[in-house]
Amino acid sequence: MIRFDLTTDQIPTAWYNALPDLAEPLQPPLHPGTREPIGPDDLTPLFPMGLIAQEMSTDAWIDIPGEVLDILRLWRPTPLVRATRLEKYLGTPARIYFKDESVSPAGSHKPNTAVPQAFYNKAEGMTRLTTETGAGQWGTALSFACRQFDMECKVYMVRSSYEQKPYRKIIMETWGSEVVPSPVDDPSSPGSLGLAISDAVRDAAGRDDSHYSLGSVLNHVLLHQTVIGLEAREQLALAGETRPDVVIASCGGGSNLGGIALPFMTDPEVRLVAVEPASCPTLTEGRFEYDFGDSVGMTPLMPMYTLGHDFMPPTIHAGGLRYHGDSPIISNLVQTGRMEAMAYQQGKTFEAAVTFANTEGKIPAPETGHAIRAAIDEALACKETGEEKVILFNYSGHGLLDLAAYDDYLHDRLIDA
Amino acid sequence: MIRFDLTTDQIPTAWYNALPDLAEPLQPPLHPGTREPIGPDDLTPLFPMGLIAQEMSTDAWIDIPGEVLDILRLWRPTPLVRATRLEKYLGTPARIYFKDESVSPAGSHKPNTAVPQAFYNKAEGMTRLTTETGAGQWGTALSFACRQFDMECKVYMVRSSYEQKPYRKIIMETWGSEVVPSPVDDPSSPGSLGLAISDAVRDAAGRDDSHYSLGSVLNHVLLHQTVIGLEAREQLALAGETRPDVVIASCGGGSNLGGIALPFMTDPEVRLVAVEPASCPTLTEGRFEYDFGDSVGMTPLMPMYTLGHDFMPPTIHAGGLRYHGDSPIISNLVQTGRMEAMAYQQGKTFEAAVTFANTEGKIPAPETGHAIRAAIDEALACKETGEEKVILFNYSGHGLLDLAAYDDYLHDRLIDA
Repeated sequence: MIRFDLTTDQIPTAWYNALPDLAEPLQPPLHPGTREPIGPDDLTPLFPMGLIAQEMSTDAWIDIPGEVLDILRLWRPTPLVRATRLEKYLGTPARIYFKDESVSPAGSHKPNTAVPQAFYNKAEGMTRLTTETGAGQWGTALSFACRQFDMECKVYMVRSSYEQKPYRKIIMETWGSEVVPSPVDDPSSPGSLGLAISDAVRDAAGRDDSHYSLGSVLNHVLLHQTVIGLEAREQLALAGETRPDVVIASCGGGSNLGGIALPFMTDPEVRLVAVEPASCPTLTEGRFEYDFGDSVGMTPLMPMYTLGHDFMPPTIHAGGLRYHGDSPIISNLVQTGRMEAMAYQQGKTFEAAVTFANTEGKIPAPETGHAIRAAIDEALACKETGEEKVILFNYSGHGLLDLAAYDDYLHDRLIDA
Repeated sequence: MIRFDLTTDQIPTAWYNALPDLAEPLQPPLHPGTREPIGPDDLTPLFPMGLIAQEMSTDAWIDIPGEVLDILRLWRPTPLVRATRLEKYLGTPARIYFKDESVSPAGSHKPNTAVPQAFYNKAEGMTRLTTETGAGQWGTALSFACRQFDMECKVYMVRSSYEQKPYRKIIMETWGSEVVPSPVDDPSSPGSLGLAISDAVRDAAGRDDSHYSLGSVLNHVLLHQTVIGLEAREQLALAGETRPDVVIASCGGGSNLGGIALPFMTDPEVRLVAVEPASCPTLTEGRFEYDFGDSVGMTPLMPMYTLGHDFMPPTIHAGGLRYHGDSPIISNLVQTGRMEAMAYQQGKTFEAAVTFANTEGKIPAPETGHAIRAAIDEALACKETGEEKVILFNYSGHGLLDLAAYDDYLHDRLIDA
């Protein structure tokens, strides 16, 4: 067998909360004005109490509501696949498994948190959510989730993407969302993620029927993503594996990485590896300190690896990895030595992505190409040493809406940043 | 449970050959020059004997080679899903199941035949295949298959699509194919499928290392697609269903329809339904007679429903359904009354596709929207009568590379042909 499926009845029914298992506790977020630790009340204008409670919970497990499970079952459990054709091509004794999160309606892991976020907001009376999106991965995921709960969704999309990359905008509109270019008050500006956050937060803060929703970085987002690793653990057992030797994922804000890695965190035999772009080397070259989550200084200060909230990474195709900071949980794991971090220039990641496409058939998202690169390099190292390592990586999304990037790579137009 | 999975070990190991079970035997294809029945030798310049033998076989079952199974297992068995959220939205007592062929590397059912076609050609010494493609579904599938067997692939793509729809071209190039606009000898022509066939056939006929490959219509293509219905039959049993009351698929050349319907053909309790576009109503308004498979009269004459080989359907978004003729097997079933046929204008099919996207989450190919429309109408009829029918339809492909069509529909720019 090369694919290890769980039935829809075997979907995890509780999320794994990493907070109580961290070797060193997380430092609290600080108020952007007072620099004092913030409490739940500081977050209520933007988030429902259900999510605020999860953000700070010390419970080891948190039940997944039935209405959330009913929607997650549209695509979960996702497949765990052994990449035998890639192994053969590499000539490696390693066994390479990937967890295929690309099968979700939005094509990535993002709906795993969009669905519960919509649920908890609706449960507390909200009828509308706002958010920002760059190329559109997160905006599509939240649009899908809001449609399932009959909620309105307004997406502030970075204007340059809105104008140049219309496809994810069309998906959002197909699911009923309103998508507008950001910044709303300056049609001549190409926009940025930081400005779009400002638009979305201002909108939500000004209306009683609306909250704001964030697709990465925060503790509750990583919590929701742990279904990935929890399923993978069961599926590896079906495959006859005791444990993975190494778990690999790309890292921007940290949610797909946290999702697959956190459920393996307490097993010291399992290496955890974050892969980031060399052009935005937060974990590998950033400082560990308090910084703002956004670029303009509106959000609470969080303890994390950061390149500075005003850092502007070069334009690379893996837009989802262009973030100046990192999830506090991921930052904590790297700082305490529990997790490794590495960085690649994008040329090497596209080379790996094309190798994957030519052996396993699937065309990966540019972000996912980073994880594939690291998995291939692990497997090639095993070829040198003869080790039969078990390598698990997160296939976080497909590249069917990123084909222009492949066109650039295939025709030598890629800037190898 | 809402998804019924088979393991990769439960993949069908033989194709079902409908030919010996037809109530009336197929009339033979005729030579385009002599109008005499053609024999195997007439086909050898373009096809390998392995496929020619399948085209004319009277064996009920034909074993699937192990090397083909090894590649099909990259995505097969595909999921059978019960569309419970669509059922609830419609308020129908019917149980709606769809077979999800969109999970293949190329995003449709097409690789089911591309892989064995590449295999049999390679087994007989070919190192290169040529084909034509319109919007690119078939070209991507054959590109994927050739890459898996280390064969060259040259795709003649209708020039208007080559210039306006670059995304599937990029996929083909990612898998190593050479893609050129057709017609090759007239850069001012927008091209047509008929002209592209001419280019591909001429190329293959002139080289000893090359054969030509066709993605629909022929008996061996439908044979290869029967894995769809064979799996669905097993999966419906897992779901506790004795049989489907009705099996529905869109029909252009007939391969996704044949694939899901033929394995149910000998059960008289199962209705089989072909759904075509009103703008190209081959089965519902065509004549049953001998006609050419292509538009310029190079191919053998086949007994089929046809609108005339020079019929030029209007441009609709379901490009895969714009074919003047139909598979001889499908035509035979309609003519003998075993299969029903119906036609919709595209506005109604996009309405159904968006309903599906908003309930089940997935965005269908425009072609697939036709099957969904018919399935919804069956389910709504059950709502009237109270019948708890079991409806099975083929989710033949995703719409992620057809989003411009959704954009037109959502903004009232769709021509409702």
